[in-house]
Amino acid sequence: MAQTQNQKDLAHARTKTSFDVSNMTRYLYAGPENVEQRRYIIDLIAREPIFNKDDWAWLNHTDAVKRGIAMSARLAEIKMEHELNDLDFATMCEIIDDTLPILLHNGAFIPVINSQGTDEQIEKWIPLAEKFQIIGCYAQTELGHGSNLSQLETTATFIPDTDEWEINSTSFTAAKWWIGGLGALCTHAVVQARLSINGKDYGAHVFVVPIRSLEDHKPFPGIEVGDIGPKAYGGFNKMENGFARFHKYRIPRDNMLMRFSKVSRDGVYIKPPHAKLSYGSMVLLRSVLIRQMGQYFSRATTVATRYLTVRRQFNNPTQRNDSDLNPDLETQVINYPMVQNRLFPMIAQSYALFAAGQVMMEMYIGLMTGLSSGDIAALAEVHATSSALKSYCTTIGAAGTEECRKLMGGHGYSYFTGLSHLFASIVPSNTYEGDNYVLTQQMARYLLKEIKIAKVEPEKVTPYSKYLLQALDKNAFGRTHCSVTRPEDWLNPKVQLAAFEYRSARLAFELHDAVEQGGQDPAHLKTWSDHNIECYRVSHAHAQYVMVRWFIQSIEEAQNSEEEERRLQSPGVKVLESLSHLHALHTMQTNLADFCEDGYLSPSQCQSLRAQVKALVASLADEVVGLVDAFDHPDFLLNSALGAYDGNAYQRLWDKAQSEPLNRKEVCDGYEEYIRPLLKKHGELKL
Amino acid sequence: MAQTQNQKDLAHARTKTSFDVSNMTRYLYAGPENVEQRRYIIDLIAREPIFNKDDWAWLNHTDAVKRGIAMSARLAEIKMEHELNDLDFATMCEIIDDTLPILLHNGAFIPVINSQGTDEQIEKWIPLAEKFQIIGCYAQTELGHGSNLSQLETTATFIPDTDEWEINSTSFTAAKWWIGGLGALCTHAVVQARLSINGKDYGAHVFVVPIRSLEDHKPFPGIEVGDIGPKAYGGFNKMENGFARFHKYRIPRDNMLMRFSKVSRDGVYIKPPHAKLSYGSMVLLRSVLIRQMGQYFSRATTVATRYLTVRRQFNNPTQRNDSDLNPDLETQVINYPMVQNRLFPMIAQSYALFAAGQVMMEMYIGLMTGLSSGDIAALAEVHATSSALKSYCTTIGAAGTEECRKLMGGHGYSYFTGLSHLFASIVPSNTYEGDNYVLTQQMARYLLKEIKIAKVEPEKVTPYSKYLLQALDKNAFGRTHCSVTRPEDWLNPKVQLAAFEYRSARLAFELHDAVEQGGQDPAHLKTWSDHNIECYRVSHAHAQYVMVRWFIQSIEEAQNSEEEERRLQSPGVKVLESLSHLHALHTMQTNLADFCEDGYLSPSQCQSLRAQVKALVASLADEVVGLVDAFDHPDFLLNSALGAYDGNAYQRLWDKAQSEPLNRKEVCDGYEEYIRPLLKKHGELKL
Repeated sequence: MAQTQNQKDLAHARTKTSFDVSNMTRYLYAGPENVEQRRYIIDLIAREPIFNKDDWAWLNHTDAVKRGIAMSARLAEIKMEHELNDLDFATMCEIIDDTLPILLHNGAFIPVINSQGTDEQIEKWIPLAEKFQIIGCYAQTELGHGSNLSQLETTATFIPDTDEWEINSTSFTAAKWWIGGLGALCTHAVVQARLSINGKDYGAHVFVVPIRSLEDHKPFPGIEVGDIGPKAYGGFNKMENGFARFHKYRIPRDNMLMRFSKVSRDGVYIKPPHAKLSYGSMVLLRSVLIRQMGQYFSRATTVATRYLTVRRQFNNPTQRNDSDLNPDLETQVINYPMVQNRLFPMIAQSYALFAAGQVMMEMYIGLMTGLSSGDIAALAEVHATSSALKSYCTTIGAAGTEECRKLMGGHGYSYFTGLSHLFASIVPSNTYEGDNYVLTQQMARYLLKEIKIAKVEPEKVTPYSKYLLQALDKNAFGRTHCSVTRPEDWLNPKVQLAAFEYRSARLAFELHDAVEQGGQDPAHLKTWSDHNIECYRVSHAHAQYVMVRWFIQSIEEAQNSEEEERRLQSPGVKVLESLSHLHALHTMQTNLADFCEDGYLSPSQCQSLRAQVKALVASLADEVVGLVDAFDHPDFLLNSALGAYDGNAYQRLWDKAQSEPLNRKEVCDGYEEYIRPLLKKHGELKL
Repeated sequence: MAQTQNQKDLAHARTKTSFDVSNMTRYLYAGPENVEQRRYIIDLIAREPIFNKDDWAWLNHTDAVKRGIAMSARLAEIKMEHELNDLDFATMCEIIDDTLPILLHNGAFIPVINSQGTDEQIEKWIPLAEKFQIIGCYAQTELGHGSNLSQLETTATFIPDTDEWEINSTSFTAAKWWIGGLGALCTHAVVQARLSINGKDYGAHVFVVPIRSLEDHKPFPGIEVGDIGPKAYGGFNKMENGFARFHKYRIPRDNMLMRFSKVSRDGVYIKPPHAKLSYGSMVLLRSVLIRQMGQYFSRATTVATRYLTVRRQFNNPTQRNDSDLNPDLETQVINYPMVQNRLFPMIAQSYALFAAGQVMMEMYIGLMTGLSSGDIAALAEVHATSSALKSYCTTIGAAGTEECRKLMGGHGYSYFTGLSHLFASIVPSNTYEGDNYVLTQQMARYLLKEIKIAKVEPEKVTPYSKYLLQALDKNAFGRTHCSVTRPEDWLNPKVQLAAFEYRSARLAFELHDAVEQGGQDPAHLKTWSDHNIECYRVSHAHAQYVMVRWFIQSIEEAQNSEEEERRLQSPGVKVLESLSHLHALHTMQTNLADFCEDGYLSPSQCQSLRAQVKALVASLADEVVGLVDAFDHPDFLLNSALGAYDGNAYQRLWDKAQSEPLNRKEVCDGYEEYIRPLLKKHGELKL
């Protein structure tokens, strides 16, 4: 069959890419072996009929949950058949492109037992879980409590007579809520409940609670359990998020996970040695989210870039128009500067997110290595960094995905872009694992502590807070100015980092001063919450600084790698450097007031910054299709009529419409019942 | 039954409101008669079982479309039974809270015939349409063309022999696409097609095209028609958006609407007297969208305000905690400054949108009165204003609705907030009726023309562009400074308006200079598209100015009204003034770089602006529940478990979950088939 114009346009765009796309892919995934492993996993999934996505658009929640259960079971089998590890399992879940109830089994149930169970408990539960002889979930959130763990209302009361815990939902709002896998799939749950002995409350602890019979899957007496209903935007449709109320439900004492806190047979409570040891799992969850955000957001930019390359609208003869193709054709939408200036910075952000995900995971692994030998020195910085980045990255990832969808104009509102499904899956990450606003308090608190340290023991300031030192001289603020004089100065990474460092330091010190002042002036006494808006600003400023720094760093490393397969060849490096500049300068432009309100940037610098952003955007016009190809997302994953690799957007959109079940009938359901009586109300009409 | 704590909290919050809520409602709807009429319409709808929303969460697209057809038919009957006018019909559609295929019959089919048909054509078609003996839709967009009307690929070729038009989809991408009502419901369509006589192309014209037989509703031979499939986020689920391909399909010559252009029996084409006469309908559609945005967005702020008033999280003893209720309770989430500073400015925006919708509709009516007597003087300004405001208002309305949903934290991701359905319905307005980015070129072009006029005939500058005059002295920029010296100066509407005027003028003149320069320097020749980013900034700056001005103006008018029923009593006026200040200053803060990058605001003014916004937010804490009650949205409309009037959020969320169809079974579908085999793969397990 002859190529459509759409296909020609995308193929033609690919000829212009200046760099080797495969090499770029190896850079993004930190080496060829990771690229190969991901492709191997994709192939495992894509060939299985149960993971076919063709009818997803038409499933209601009831049917979708059943599908989710079937997919979950098959996923478990594949994991066992191919002896895949947890990282591969996570990759499978990403490729499947829907959140399944089995996810929490490997993502939370097993890790919690592994980290909080004693050796005996691990030996008892983990082999069963690994072989899926039991299926678990993680039950923390309640109807009345999410963020505030210490006020959970589920209790676990020690019953000395029988050596048991009595799990109880003390009130209506104590019902566990939102628990993935609890509504239908799981046999067991690890449940957060407030431990109580002899009327004394010891706070939240973790218990392994059998939920459904291994005989017939019926919920045990004393547990009221079910699905909480559909989610926003049709998101998590195949996930059954469950609720559970416990009515004085008994479990053995030994089902409390006792690696840290313990309760003896005679009801004596033994405190954990270090209260923060469980922070590791929070850091992991947030680091994974940051890494995922690169995956997710890059899918959105891939789809938008391809579709906007093949969509043509208006013949704008003075506009760059690929006249080597055919001067009579309308202009490709991607050639409009407005479109480029919205889209290309998001491609740069996607790349920055890949780099951030990589470094964050390395930081986490370093932390865990330290912790395992009792070294908690890095904990505070890593925890704060993962919090700040989780908040920032998931915010821009969700908002950017919706922006990509809107960039696609009218057809962007079709389900068949794939992007509404993607957004619906991403956006809860803005509120779970720490609400993105509440979470920013972590980094703010951390920086305030670092300021105190900087004043007395400057050598102890941690690597990513070193910029605070420059600012110990109070006169720095309002008197420091950006050094840019010529447009090309903006392309100096040192200049970029200096700007982000100065701005973060200024905001951190302003917060510091406000907190000190607020605590001292009795007439205007302020509490921590009064500063939370500023915490948000400080934390995002720091996160942006870290993102800019890590992206720059990852390019330097790729350039200087001694291993040829990891090394980025020119001109790939040139393109990456342009992306990094664009990422830094566009982020600055988007938050311009922070940089200019105290005169750090002068009026003419603001103007030249905007001009430089536009110039960088324009310079990437021939590269963007290659840049998104390098993300290596196969059509199966994108599931997008408009963003497929071949660019055949209109044909695919047409074909999708033909598969619409409504179109199987020549006359629609409801005609005889509703339409005909209306049309004939005033008698027969002949026209 | 005893009140739940949730109910107590909301009831208690209501006792604090300082103003009369009913009086505020009358202000919002511009008089008691409008409030009454709206309530009458709500009652008509809410009592009909077919409009019940209880099972909406579980309908797939197939079932939803059938429901949409049933609802459409009933809506038509109610309109006839109660002899409702088009405005009432539009209100009904808003109350129903879903976009139905019948909407385009009264919203586009009838208006297009009325405005573009000859008297004879109106006499022929309109009575049939009014009695729903035919049902129509409006077919403009094609698979390959949306924004660019002039390149539509559907043709209407005159066939002299039979005195007919041959409607033809000349290519694959000529298929009409996205056409509401075309997929299943309609019998007729008004179709935009390029008129061709004797091989000569006369551009797009409008034709009445029979689609389905009045006998049996089957599509006529030569028309390939169907539904294009589901939409993003489950939006427009009950709407069938259709496609159609015409295969040399014949209709009588007289089916061309000939009020302006005409074609005679012998194939002579007669041009319309004035090309812009059809702008009126575009202005109307955009004005309606602006008015709707107040309705929609205020529903989101209502739901969020009520839920955040009853949600309690963390016991923050130093935080304002309604200790008159019970000091042991956790803090109401709405009492956290971070939450207030996100939510309250959106309540202010909702009020500003109500005011803007009101004034915009008045402007439209004024324009039409003028046009009907041949006066086109106001056309350009009204058209540009409606374009700029449509772009700005639908952008903040959609983004704000999603922000309200996220403000609700974890439970915000439940379908039962009602807000995801709302967002899914609002967000296509960002791309239809003129893409929000493309549309900003209208206002930019207009302001550039006004600058030219200002230079030669300053007295001819239109009312909303008068601010350009102050800036004719080029030295004004970079040397003008905001007059604020004391915090209370920010509360002067003149100061606020001066800031918005100065900023708009600066951006408009910068654009003007760039366009002049770009056209002159051959080395850096720029086209209009190169300036589109700046057009966007200019247009939104102007839109914000107009919004601030209209909100201020509407309060002044309410205060000075001679009719007691329309007049706002103190302290209602005080609260409204605070809202207006907050709206203006928060908008300024959100776009701070525009105001400070050239030194118009000094560093200390930036600081004091932020402080003033915080102070205004804090001052509204006791008023917000009353302010959202005043929107007068009944529970039927909100369809929100979390935002109902009684505040009983947890109970309603629980009840909704119990109605989940999945929960009818003790053991889920798929257990025997998928879960059991997995659990038993390694043999029976006894625990």
